[in-house]
Amino acid sequence: MLIDHLSIIGVGLIGGSLARALRKAKLVNRITGCNRNEDSLIKALELGVIDDYSLDIAEAVAAADVVVIGTPLSTTEKLLPTIVAALNPNAVLTDVGSAKGSVVSAARRIMGDKLPRFVPGHPIAGTEQSGVEASFAELFIDHRVILTPLQETDSKAHKLITDMWQAVGADVIDLGVKHHDDVLAATSHLPHMLAYALVDCLAGMQEREEIFKYAAGGFADFTRIASSSPEMWHDICFSNRDALLNALELFSGHIDQIKAAIENSDSEQLLAIFKRAKSARDKFTKVRSRLDDTRE
Amino acid sequence: MLIDHLSIIGVGLIGGSLARALRKAKLVNRITGCNRNEDSLIKALELGVIDDYSLDIAEAVAAADVVVIGTPLSTTEKLLPTIVAALNPNAVLTDVGSAKGSVVSAARRIMGDKLPRFVPGHPIAGTEQSGVEASFAELFIDHRVILTPLQETDSKAHKLITDMWQAVGADVIDLGVKHHDDVLAATSHLPHMLAYALVDCLAGMQEREEIFKYAAGGFADFTRIASSSPEMWHDICFSNRDALLNALELFSGHIDQIKAAIENSDSEQLLAIFKRAKSARDKFTKVRSRLDDTRE
Repeated sequence: MLIDHLSIIGVGLIGGSLARALRKAKLVNRITGCNRNEDSLIKALELGVIDDYSLDIAEAVAAADVVVIGTPLSTTEKLLPTIVAALNPNAVLTDVGSAKGSVVSAARRIMGDKLPRFVPGHPIAGTEQSGVEASFAELFIDHRVILTPLQETDSKAHKLITDMWQAVGADVIDLGVKHHDDVLAATSHLPHMLAYALVDCLAGMQEREEIFKYAAGGFADFTRIASSSPEMWHDICFSNRDALLNALELFSGHIDQIKAAIENSDSEQLLAIFKRAKSARDKFTKVRSRLDDTRE
Repeated sequence: MLIDHLSIIGVGLIGGSLARALRKAKLVNRITGCNRNEDSLIKALELGVIDDYSLDIAEAVAAADVVVIGTPLSTTEKLLPTIVAALNPNAVLTDVGSAKGSVVSAARRIMGDKLPRFVPGHPIAGTEQSGVEASFAELFIDHRVILTPLQETDSKAHKLITDMWQAVGADVIDLGVKHHDDVLAATSHLPHMLAYALVDCLAGMQEREEIFKYAAGGFADFTRIASSSPEMWHDICFSNRDALLNALELFSGHIDQIKAAIENSDSEQLLAIFKRAKSARDKFTKVRSRLDDTRE
């Protein structure tokens, strides 16, 4: 048994899927859930995702060997003092937040001598759905989980969380905290902003009826992520504020270059941008298919 | 037989796929191809896409009942005088360009009393691939084809091109020229600019290796269109210049709103944008699935 008693604070899509996957793999004895909302805990119980629950964080955490924080980023910092106070000194704490700098600095402030028990984590998986009803055991298979262990992090705690994610099918990678936040700002947070801005922009246009009626398949792919949870992305924006603002600024510069090339009828410049992008995108496709081949 | 003799000027992905689909449906007797590059015509002949070819436009057009211009937008205007001069007065001319205003104004200038024989068209279908090797008969099934007939367009010519596209599985819609260009600028041309700008932006970042290595599935969807033909998109940008610049300007305004909300820690405003976008995107998904249901 990898984990005797697992507690999940925030049993939603990610926490619920992790619970289902660990149970399916018979790697956990008992799973305790804790949410603010009792209805969702009753639902999780009915679905067999958890074995029992508590509305009280301290109670949910006290007897656990591993505690997973699956709440929205804005809540993590608020709950951390209560979680840490109740945490068994031998237990391991991890989280699933999409930005790591803000969580890590809160942990440094709050965790004291329990800091080595914290393994910051980020499973790069999800759907546009949210809530425990949307959770499923296969969510993490062949998806990456980035861990950003600190210098202080206990190596056994680090290994346990690595094993846990690998056991549910994930490809686990370690990255530095700032590095993680910069890379995610570029590859995930920025694209989400573009999808939200694009859909909001089109919805405000006079031709919006036809726009949504005649949009092609590419548009559906391109804007799928604009159906993601507004609350979750709100939290991510503020948690990864600096890296995201930096990425937005850089991106706007590139849009301005394209605009200027069109305005100035600068064929050469426009072609150069498109060719550079196509070549980088084609290279990305090759790297991905190589990775997929390696997995088989 | 719907069409006795079809000539395709520019046998690439679109022209080649149309030829394959019409042949498969046994709706055409003879298909003549015409490209600048003889190698690609030999290839098209070998693949059975065309029956014969000519490197001379006038020769390729003279005996045809229907002439489809499948060349890049920047070439259409240059070739139009030669095509029109050779066009049989009873033949029907159509094109497949992604922007219609520039093609229509060229046709008005050049076609004289043959203008009623022109049915401007735009199949909203394609892949990131190009060239006749990438063509396949099923490309247009369940895809939309927008026709932008003019007041002068002959109704029989209009009906023939409508029948032709319906016969290969497409859902044919008529739109005004300016309306088409505005809608396409928003739903297709703008998203392509964003994908090109995003990939070019990330490829220039210091962390580019990790960025492309750790990018999640959503990123792959979001940037797929940046692998499209730079030359084709270069032409589209200049052919639909005003509508596209207008859409880029509007979009930049929405990005600036998101940036400002993050900078000013304006939670309410950021959430409002994301919620508005999610609600519009969810509505779009519903409309699409309703359309898909109707088709079944």
